[in-house]
Amino acid sequence: MTEALKRRVYQANMALPEHGLVTLTWGNVSAIDRQRGLVVIKPSGVPYDEMNVSDMVVVDLDGRRVEGNNKPSSDTATHLELYARFPEIGGIVHTHSTWATSWAQAGAAIPASGTTHADYFAGAIPCTRPLSREEVAGNYELETGKVIAATIGASDPLHMPGILVSQHGPFCWGKTPEIAVQNAVVMEEVAKMAWITGTLNRQVPVMDAYLLNKHFTRKHGPDAYYGQT
Amino acid sequence: MTEALKRRVYQANMALPEHGLVTLTWGNVSAIDRQRGLVVIKPSGVPYDEMNVSDMVVVDLDGRRVEGNNKPSSDTATHLELYARFPEIGGIVHTHSTWATSWAQAGAAIPASGTTHADYFAGAIPCTRPLSREEVAGNYELETGKVIAATIGASDPLHMPGILVSQHGPFCWGKTPEIAVQNAVVMEEVAKMAWITGTLNRQVPVMDAYLLNKHFTRKHGPDAYYGQT
Amino acid sequence: MTEALKRRVYQANMALPEHGLVTLTWGNVSAIDRQRGLVVIKPSGVPYDEMNVSDMVVVDLDGRRVEGNNKPSSDTATHLELYARFPEIGGIVHTHSTWATSWAQAGAAIPASGTTHADYFAGAIPCTRPLSREEVAGNYELETGKVIAATIGASDPLHMPGILVSQHGPFCWGKTPEIAVQNAVVMEEVAKMAWITGTLNRQVPVMDAYLLNKHFTRKHGPDAYYGQT
Amino acid sequence: MTEALKRRVYQANMALPEHGLVTLTWGNVSAIDRQRGLVVIKPSGVPYDEMNVSDMVVVDLDGRRVEGNNKPSSDTATHLELYARFPEIGGIVHTHSTWATSWAQAGAAIPASGTTHADYFAGAIPCTRPLSREEVAGNYELETGKVIAATIGASDPLHMPGILVSQHGPFCWGKTPEIAVQNAVVMEEVAKMAWITGTLNRQVPVMDAYLLNKHFTRKHGPDAYYGQT
Repeated sequence: MTEALKRRVYQANMALPEHGLVTLTWGNVSAIDRQRGLVVIKPSGVPYDEMNVSDMVVVDLDGRRVEGNNKPSSDTATHLELYARFPEIGGIVHTHSTWATSWAQAGAAIPASGTTHADYFAGAIPCTRPLSREEVAGNYELETGKVIAATIGASDPLHMPGILVSQHGPFCWGKTPEIAVQNAVVMEEVAKMAWITGTLNRQVPVMDAYLLNKHFTRKHGPDAYYGQT
Repeated sequence: MTEALKRRVYQANMALPEHGLVTLTWGNVSAIDRQRGLVVIKPSGVPYDEMNVSDMVVVDLDGRRVEGNNKPSSDTATHLELYARFPEIGGIVHTHSTWATSWAQAGAAIPASGTTHADYFAGAIPCTRPLSREEVAGNYELETGKVIAATIGASDPLHMPGILVSQHGPFCWGKTPEIAVQNAVVMEEVAKMAWITGTLNRQVPVMDAYLLNKHFTRKHGPDAYYGQT
Repeated sequence: MTEALKRRVYQANMALPEHGLVTLTWGNVSAIDRQRGLVVIKPSGVPYDEMNVSDMVVVDLDGRRVEGNNKPSSDTATHLELYARFPEIGGIVHTHSTWATSWAQAGAAIPASGTTHADYFAGAIPCTRPLSREEVAGNYELETGKVIAATIGASDPLHMPGILVSQHGPFCWGKTPEIAVQNAVVMEEVAKMAWITGTLNRQVPVMDAYLLNKHFTRKHGPDAYYGQT
Repeated sequence: MTEALKRRVYQANMALPEHGLVTLTWGNVSAIDRQRGLVVIKPSGVPYDEMNVSDMVVVDLDGRRVEGNNKPSSDTATHLELYARFPEIGGIVHTHSTWATSWAQAGAAIPASGTTHADYFAGAIPCTRPLSREEVAGNYELETGKVIAATIGASDPLHMPGILVSQHGPFCWGKTPEIAVQNAVVMEEVAKMAWITGTLNRQVPVMDAYLLNKHFTRKHGPDAYYGQT
């Protein structure tokens, strides 16, 4: 059973570069087997194109390595905290995808600006407060998980399946690692579209009407002369 | 004859990801056989890379499934309303393509800002009003079709072969499903170019003239020393 | 000899989609054989992936078709006017590439904002005045060539190997069709970079210093713990 | 040993177009063999897809060609000056990558706006002052190296493994040519993300709450009707 989950976690990790969500090694996916109390996660700093199923690392709920030769992702403590706080979830994805990370760097929530967003996230995607100096100096990755959980608060984590960590980047989750990856794809796209939307309160110059008409009739109607027919 | 149309609708659907117009399953194409009163449409929520010709769904003009094992697109009622209102059209495309959707989210028409636009759309591409609370709570997809038709009004739908639905995204159409896809490609590109155009009323810094001259003459004329010759 | 030039023009045309400069059929390349007084040009409205060497059209300097079964590009009169006015040039490229077209739609010259620009263009890339109502209603494509030539004026067309036509898009040229294509690639890239440059007079938020230090030392120096070593 | 280094430099050069960092021939990588006092560098103006390992040029620390049939990169004097000033580094990369070059054109440092940046660069990535008229007219490429070294000053070049040259573009470096390429990839990505971040102080329109709820419940919960299940 761990083998099957390792394969799924491997495939979910490999889906990140396929969807254009990662540069170099900047991303990781994990999944939890709640019955056996085990989490499968990407190894730390291993390039995607050199990674195999057997490189996946299995840790217990305290982060102790149970299986695998590699060190687990340096973000493992964040993943474990989220699994502890959100019993509904089965998979977690962390990336530094361009647009979502930029919102995180701005410390701003991604507003729900259209139905694409609403199809997956039941409101604005929140951004955490910045971690304090003490939290960064202490158990940094664990504190990252805590501030995520505190920001989600009493919300249903399956209705808000992702968040931005201030000055850092996005974490997404879902019932399965595959759904978590899908949510990461969606968050990146709605992050981009919300950005464009937010810039559109500008004056766009309008072309001359006679030029417009010339080009349209060059291709359409009785006077068309573009193309072979 | 339905088989031939199913193949064309399948191919038109597959052209959407090829043109970069869809993320995940966010798009659908349909075509109408007006003589037989049948519409062929993409199934709901099926990933593009798992979809086959045989997955296409055939419905009658009231939306009743006539052929196929899948549920039709959840946007089927919108398509049927548009076929009823626009007798000139033979195919419809709906996507959530990035730039067109962003204009829709901003609730703004795409202005005609150049000949690329004028070659296909005979004026600004309109954006519908927002649907009312009652329309959303009612027969939502049908109401979407109605508000599209109301916005096009008495215009020739082949002269304005697409529209933005406020807070949602673009619908395009044409005499055939292939032309409808082409119009969706064009709308996305003119949406992007109109956006860039609208931001260009800014001051761009100009480089030092002596540096400009140095680089040009490094590559051109008697003192050139770049390259192998 | 015409066969060799047809092959070069074909290959130069095919380079446009490879460089991401064209959507659908929006672009064309021509070359001139000045000794024989012939111009080879792309056929009008033929999709790139269906085009062959034998589809290239040969016209004389008055635009009469000498060879080929297709209609020549609808922009042929523009090309012929430029060959007549610029004896130094051997090839011409017209595209609707995204960024250059957006500057053209804004009616704005592309300022020389760095050495990338200066390596190819000896100053700001000019934008023509809008064509008048009479020019558009008359011999439109010929008038387009005339306004380009008037804008270049007494400049050396090999020092300013391209231009923006207001509300339309870019034309580029060079000693050969291959160099003309290269100049079209460069213009699109400097158009994009000049746009970004022009938007950078903004305040960017700076991250917390302690978080910066934490992340750098997580990967570098004696306390690093990211990765497998 | 030179053969092995030539191969590494060749592969590092080929990695630039793979990572989308170069247009045409605009980029070069070098590496130094400090024991033998030799530098291997890309030839000037050779297209990437025609380049072989044997085209790499070997020069001594004074820039004299020791091996190879080609002229070395026109930027060789810059590379040699950096190797002389930064004994810690083993490889150098120069590109005109879009986003980093645009910051350089704006004459602006790339601020550290998130952990992605902090993972590689220990602070804002500086931009040099513009070169003076005399520096450009003199030994231009050597002066470029000097102004880079002066801007880095007493900083550890492995903690700030890259810089922007005003009105020109980025140079990156590292212990090895492979790490230098990696730093060039990172600089381009953080340049893009810092740009987006800097634009996010805008008002983004928020969609109607009832439409948001409709779309979320169309896909989730007991009333969902999207998809096949």
